[in-house]
Amino acid sequence: MHKKMSLILAAVFTAVALPASAQFAKPEDAVKYRKASFTVMGAHFGRVGAMVSGKVPFDAKLAAENVEVVADLAKLPWAAFGEGTDKGETRAKPEIWKEAGKFKELSDKFQAETVKLQAAGKTGNLDAIKTAFSATGASCKACHDSFRKD
Amino acid sequence: MHKKMSLILAAVFTAVALPASAQFAKPEDAVKYRKASFTVMGAHFGRVGAMVSGKVPFDAKLAAENVEVVADLAKLPWAAFGEGTDKGETRAKPEIWKEAGKFKELSDKFQAETVKLQAAGKTGNLDAIKTAFSATGASCKACHDSFRKD
Repeated sequence: MHKKMSLILAAVFTAVALPASAQFAKPEDAVKYRKASFTVMGAHFGRVGAMVSGKVPFDAKLAAENVEVVADLAKLPWAAFGEGTDKGETRAKPEIWKEAGKFKELSDKFQAETVKLQAAGKTGNLDAIKTAFSATGASCKACHDSFRKD
Repeated sequence: MHKKMSLILAAVFTAVALPASAQFAKPEDAVKYRKASFTVMGAHFGRVGAMVSGKVPFDAKLAAENVEVVADLAKLPWAAFGEGTDKGETRAKPEIWKEAGKFKELSDKFQAETVKLQAAGKTGNLDAIKTAFSATGASCKACHDSFRKD
């Protein structure tokens, strides 16, 4: 078991060589991670949107599952906007670091909206989900308008 | 509200034009999504690994949070390995679709290991986490060895 664990750890740490003091070894790892978390979140948000807009039939169980993933993922990207992660393949605007208070406020608001969306999903009520979906989408957009390049 | 919702939906569906019958509009969306889910999962798994290996001090709360994200994300990528998603920028081997039963078996096993890892995280016991981390890592590797290109 111990030899196997060492091999696994060696494999893991070839890819993810974490320094003791940071969650990401390199700024590009943080950029890749936060983009990935938005990609996954957006896919599940889009599935809820397809029900909200009537493009696909409403399925309460599926809607609840999808908004739960949205709420889980909504917690993640913010820790990956550390200093020095404004470079490379990112649409992040410099304002994220210049107006850090506003960025935090908008990202906190967004997370709070996803918690409400998750709660709406648990009710199984389409109208409740529509209202919370709209508020969450508006919150995405507010942050993108200020902090994401087109 | 309704006009605003329409605008939001329009924005969402410009990017995510979902057909009624599929979770992904295009094969490349599925590829991007599954890679993103592995990226996020791997980052959190790596943080647990850093504690398991002693590279960073063990923090029971952080470990529990990270393994929870691993278990949440471990549910997601499999639905994105549908027919026709074997092309493009992917390391997925054709064997995934030729040996679909084995792929499902290994991915189910992996998910089960992440559930055990999550349970170990809740105990706050480093030895329990080490054991479950090792089993989970071995399960990652088993699937990669058969189904992922180097």
